[in-house]
Amino acid sequence: MNTQPLAASGGETALAIVCGGGTLPFALADAVMRRGRKVVLFPLHGWADPQRVLAYPHHWLRLGQASRFMRIASEHGCREITFIGSVLRPSIWKMLPDWRALQLLPQIIKLYRGGDDHLLTGIGRLTEQFGYRLVGVKEIAPELAMPRGLLGRHAPSERDCADIVRGLALLNATSPFDIGQAVVVADNHILAVEGPEGTDQAIARVAELRGNGRIHSPAGTGVLIKAPKIGQDDRIDLPAIGPPTVETSAAAGLAGIAVVAGSTLLAEPERIAAAADRAGMFVIGVDADGTQP
Amino acid sequence: MNTQPLAASGGETALAIVCGGGTLPFALADAVMRRGRKVVLFPLHGWADPQRVLAYPHHWLRLGQASRFMRIASEHGCREITFIGSVLRPSIWKMLPDWRALQLLPQIIKLYRGGDDHLLTGIGRLTEQFGYRLVGVKEIAPELAMPRGLLGRHAPSERDCADIVRGLALLNATSPFDIGQAVVVADNHILAVEGPEGTDQAIARVAELRGNGRIHSPAGTGVLIKAPKIGQDDRIDLPAIGPPTVETSAAAGLAGIAVVAGSTLLAEPERIAAAADRAGMFVIGVDADGTQP
Repeated sequence: MNTQPLAASGGETALAIVCGGGTLPFALADAVMRRGRKVVLFPLHGWADPQRVLAYPHHWLRLGQASRFMRIASEHGCREITFIGSVLRPSIWKMLPDWRALQLLPQIIKLYRGGDDHLLTGIGRLTEQFGYRLVGVKEIAPELAMPRGLLGRHAPSERDCADIVRGLALLNATSPFDIGQAVVVADNHILAVEGPEGTDQAIARVAELRGNGRIHSPAGTGVLIKAPKIGQDDRIDLPAIGPPTVETSAAAGLAGIAVVAGSTLLAEPERIAAAADRAGMFVIGVDADGTQP
Repeated sequence: MNTQPLAASGGETALAIVCGGGTLPFALADAVMRRGRKVVLFPLHGWADPQRVLAYPHHWLRLGQASRFMRIASEHGCREITFIGSVLRPSIWKMLPDWRALQLLPQIIKLYRGGDDHLLTGIGRLTEQFGYRLVGVKEIAPELAMPRGLLGRHAPSERDCADIVRGLALLNATSPFDIGQAVVVADNHILAVEGPEGTDQAIARVAELRGNGRIHSPAGTGVLIKAPKIGQDDRIDLPAIGPPTVETSAAAGLAGIAVVAGSTLLAEPERIAAAADRAGMFVIGVDADGTQP
């Protein structure tokens, strides 16, 4: 690991990182530390990796522990906070609100009436009500985002490129409805639109529909396309891909994956590229309108 | 059954009815015969009900038997043709094209590059190339379409009405992409967008997501909303609901079903109403913008 301090990305105080699942929280912590800034991790029970957090200053949180978070963050002098890693939309009934969260409960319940983006953006705003600055991964560590161009050695065909443009146009159209950030398109035909089931389940549906003959585009065609919602607060809930995304897509017989460059987080880019190369799939970062480098 | 002849709905010659699955083909045949017009059924192997066709003049077809269809239709003097009943997008490899269909094969293959609407509209146009007039169910037997207003005794709540408006707006936005004609919305949150898996599978997904805690709107909330694609040829592929739609929706804990009045076919409306009443669900016909009577 590169331990040279880089330029600090604003704010001299330790960065509070609220961590969901996956490897991205640790990639972010490392990137911030490389810039010479301290971090304090707040891993979420049930989501964050208990082994990997051991390497960092950390304090476990349960959903709803707003008072605990504020007390510890204040002890560390944290003024800036970021959210990263997977957390499925939690059941409001599974929250164990402490007294601070209890005060917020009416606002939280209101947030639950709406899509995921609505919920996450709202939680971000609540955070700011208490005087924290919410910072996004793009701002702190842009190197965690997908670059423009290819990640492995395979490139999309002309047909794949047409599917990418079509998929981005569809995501554009559904964006105001605050639903999923992914679609699968094969040969101009929409095979799946992600809902609250998540990207992996939407891809698995394509595998199933191919298996039972309900869709007929041959294996080796079809692109998973992911894009951030238009107008969403990009400090929160950027789409992400990792090696499992490639494996699930390969199992569904897709030709590749296209994501919006600069606005999609990459977990373990080297492993993504290796998995894509093994599967004969492309992984590409494109502009939001499908333009390629 | 009412056997009084009604006013003939244009064309004195027998109507050729190409029949997919379900009960709608027979409801249509009865409605046409009540108007004093003859029918010739062309049930599709693998889709149409072999018992129920026995009550009508009929000639079985396999997918791809274009020459056979044209020969028999001409013997009966049919000039008008309609398509009705469920046929899932068939595999082009399962077609057994006869010589006439073989001539069309390049055009049919081109149609396969696109969504379902593209395919169906294209097949309709091919039919007209051979001098048949393609007629829609709305034109021949408007009484098979959902009327405005309630079908059973339950009515949507204010929240359900808001969900209906949101669902129709989403279907409006996805319509140019030629995907499914159904969405499920609960409490302002999009729970499912139908893709090629079909309406029943999309509803089943909601049941599953509720079962495993991925979505949290309580049972008794959520509306299945179906609408025809905007600008689609409404002589072909109108959305349809039947008693199984109600049963699947009830199993997913939905509050009700909303469809666009006049543009959604009803299979067995009395059984739909009875099933909805038993399940405590509403079934309503609304305008395309969600306006209710």
